[in-house]
Amino acid sequence: MSNLAKYQQIVEETLQSTQFPTQPDELYAPVRYIMGLGGKRIRPVLTLLGCDIFGGDLQKAAKPALAMEVFHNFTLVHDDLMDNAPLRRGKQTVHEKWNASTAVLSGDVMLILAYDLLAEIEQSKLPKAVRLFNDTAKKVCEGQQFDMVFEKQHNVSIKNYIEMIGLKTAVLLGGCLQMGALLADASEENQKLIYDFGYTIGIAFQVQDDLLDAYGTSAQFGKTIGGDIAANKKTFLTLKALELADDELKTDLENLYSSNSHISNDEKILRVMEIYEKLNIKAETEKLRDEFYELAMADLDKIAGADESKKQLLRQFAVDLVSRAK
Amino acid sequence: MSNLAKYQQIVEETLQSTQFPTQPDELYAPVRYIMGLGGKRIRPVLTLLGCDIFGGDLQKAAKPALAMEVFHNFTLVHDDLMDNAPLRRGKQTVHEKWNASTAVLSGDVMLILAYDLLAEIEQSKLPKAVRLFNDTAKKVCEGQQFDMVFEKQHNVSIKNYIEMIGLKTAVLLGGCLQMGALLADASEENQKLIYDFGYTIGIAFQVQDDLLDAYGTSAQFGKTIGGDIAANKKTFLTLKALELADDELKTDLENLYSSNSHISNDEKILRVMEIYEKLNIKAETEKLRDEFYELAMADLDKIAGADESKKQLLRQFAVDLVSRAK
Repeated sequence: MSNLAKYQQIVEETLQSTQFPTQPDELYAPVRYIMGLGGKRIRPVLTLLGCDIFGGDLQKAAKPALAMEVFHNFTLVHDDLMDNAPLRRGKQTVHEKWNASTAVLSGDVMLILAYDLLAEIEQSKLPKAVRLFNDTAKKVCEGQQFDMVFEKQHNVSIKNYIEMIGLKTAVLLGGCLQMGALLADASEENQKLIYDFGYTIGIAFQVQDDLLDAYGTSAQFGKTIGGDIAANKKTFLTLKALELADDELKTDLENLYSSNSHISNDEKILRVMEIYEKLNIKAETEKLRDEFYELAMADLDKIAGADESKKQLLRQFAVDLVSRAK
Repeated sequence: MSNLAKYQQIVEETLQSTQFPTQPDELYAPVRYIMGLGGKRIRPVLTLLGCDIFGGDLQKAAKPALAMEVFHNFTLVHDDLMDNAPLRRGKQTVHEKWNASTAVLSGDVMLILAYDLLAEIEQSKLPKAVRLFNDTAKKVCEGQQFDMVFEKQHNVSIKNYIEMIGLKTAVLLGGCLQMGALLADASEENQKLIYDFGYTIGIAFQVQDDLLDAYGTSAQFGKTIGGDIAANKKTFLTLKALELADDELKTDLENLYSSNSHISNDEKILRVMEIYEKLNIKAETEKLRDEFYELAMADLDKIAGADESKKQLLRQFAVDLVSRAK
């Protein structure tokens, strides 16, 4: 993503120049910790790109862009707690490094800090920006809730799965781009189109993320490989496997995911992966990812009056986003 | 608080007419549950009073007033989870009725819903209202963090304790009043004065709350009696007892609060209360409460140009607030 280095640099500089509070240290140290773990800063870069593509002022978009990253990191802290995840970006999660209460409360204050950063935009734009931020944030919570519900639900359709990842992941990518467009005074129609592009590429991105959970390496992924399988997550991989499996394989899969199964997580992951191999799940998942990728590209083509060279950056960004493992 | 029935009615009507989302039910049912548990609606009533006292439009203040109540209930959901509290207003807490993850996520969405309600004010007032809301909300989180830190800290001074309850409880009462004053276009000076009144009466209110935890009845209090003692909370009662105790009583108290103590919670509460009796802690606590009450009244007297009859309502409110057990 070297073409995006300019945007990433703005994000890092804005993060460095933002003085998060320091006392009580137990509350704010986890904020600095999680914000300091790095990552590609995908969401604030999208806000800056969404602004730049419509000729907006990047400096004025820097704080609200960081607001989107702080919001995203707030969801990571709380989601990791709820999912009982040990690692995030190859490092200890906040509830592991500190404890559950710290993860709850430091997460809470991060959500407020995100609104603090958002409030530093041109005052006349604040009402619409707060609405967009709120709508996006609520949907992300709804997506996380559906994700947890699906873990315990027997019949989850692939349609439900896509709606869930749409809320949990894709809405935020769309919202980040629209925030940038809104700051650049883009038309309502262009705001909608760039939101749609972000939403659709977000689905492709999450499908790719699910693929990496099973087929990536820990270094590449920064999380525990097979974590979704261990946590009984119904990703596209599992749902497609259940759809394609004959009765015998289906029973095997359901037994592996059953709470009555007393095998170790390593054994469980290994055996589920064997079933994926038999059913060609990797190729099926890549096919779905690529379908959404094509749809997103078509959305992007529809945007009129935007800077073509910046649109090209967004196309390249989309390529990178969905092909981290290629 | 019958003189305040008018304001309470506006709060209830606004709550009834507010359509919280419904899907996923697992996310939003806890929101309706906690908001439906009632209570005196102290915080939104303060916002309405703060508006009314300066001649503002009560109807325009109704949604932001409800925002303050939703925010307060968000803190209850997360605090009860962190404190492992079984009861709230005599009913099961959210994490008890559902589970910890539900309490985290439904709480999160309530914080966003509070901003949703706040955003329904006159657009020109939103930037200042968001700033006030954010500053208040951050301080409440800081107070909760200090509260948790103090549980494990050996030497907590009475000064630290008062600063902590200032952040955790009093700042929100001040913020609610200032929000109302801001909506009524009160001067910066009057906003500051009414904030100070709210902050100071908030300290008196929390001291009274701590007193009720030890000396109230479950029906009166709606929480488990002695919960603070069981949870090793360093309230004014404990800190004053440690200050006044001779070496023998001090050792007794410290042993009771030690993690090496293997007695039951009931026994622990009983024995701590015996020490309180010996040291006249009830009267000492009432004295501190009354000092802050007098300070608050002096703050209120300084407010110029406000409606005298409404100021009288606020005086009566303060009396009721700190004398629930009298």
